[in-house]
Amino acid sequence: MPDPTTLYVCTTCRLAGDDPDGPRAGARLFDALFARAEGVRVEPVECLSVCKRPCTVAVASPDRWTYVYGDLDAENSARTILTGIGLYGETGDGIVPWRARPEIFRKGVVARIPPFPPKASNP
Amino acid sequence: MPDPTTLYVCTTCRLAGDDPDGPRAGARLFDALFARAEGVRVEPVECLSVCKRPCTVAVASPDRWTYVYGDLDAENSARTILTGIGLYGETGDGIVPWRARPEIFRKGVVARIPPFPPKASNP
Repeated sequence: MPDPTTLYVCTTCRLAGDDPDGPRAGARLFDALFARAEGVRVEPVECLSVCKRPCTVAVASPDRWTYVYGDLDAENSARTILTGIGLYGETGDGIVPWRARPEIFRKGVVARIPPFPPKASNP
Repeated sequence: MPDPTTLYVCTTCRLAGDDPDGPRAGARLFDALFARAEGVRVEPVECLSVCKRPCTVAVASPDRWTYVYGDLDAENSARTILTGIGLYGETGDGIVPWRARPEIFRKGVVARIPPFPPKASNP
C-alpha cells in the first residue's frame, strides 16, 4: 500500500509574468508534481490562503505534522519538492532534521500544524 | 459531547517588548484562551513556524479545513478568537463566509489546509 502522504498544490497561485491565456504557475507546478510523484497523492486545491507567496503547497499525513511551503518555483522545483516529501514520509512524525531539508523548504516554510487529533485524545 | 475542534496556540511566540523574565506573548495568549474556552480543546504548541507573525494559532477539526492565523494580540484577542472559532464550529467544512469572519482572522490568515484525508479517499 502506498504511503498515504498527501501533497496539496494550490492551482490558483499565479505569478506576475504568467501568460493570461495559459495555465497559472500553480497549475503548472501541479502538473509537474503529478507527473513525477510516486507513492504520494497529489491533490489540486483552489487556494491555500498563502496568496502573497506563490507557488504554495501543503503536505499532510496521518500522525505526522502538516507543513505549508511557499515561494516555490513553478518550473524547476517539482523534483526537489518530491525529494523533501520523500524524507518527510520516512519520518514517524513528519519532522525532518533541519539540515536535511531542501533549502526551498527551509526558506519557504509558511506554517506547520501538529498531528490531528492531538495525541492525548487518542490514548 | 463537546465539539472536537482543537485550537493550537504557539507558546514560543514572543514580542519585542516581552519581559525577558516573564511568560512570552504566546504563553500569555494561551493562558487567556485556555481560561475562556468552552467546547474547544486548547492545546499549547512549541512552534507553528510562523515566527515572523506572532502571536499565532491554528484551528483544526475533523472534516473541516484547518486555518492558521498570525499577528494576534496576546492581551486583547482571546475573546475575538474564540468567537471566530465558534463560527468555524458551526460550519460543516470550516469555511466561514468572509464578511462574517473577525477582522483579525481576515487580516491575520497565514494559510489554510483542506480536510484530511481528502474526500476522494473516503468514499
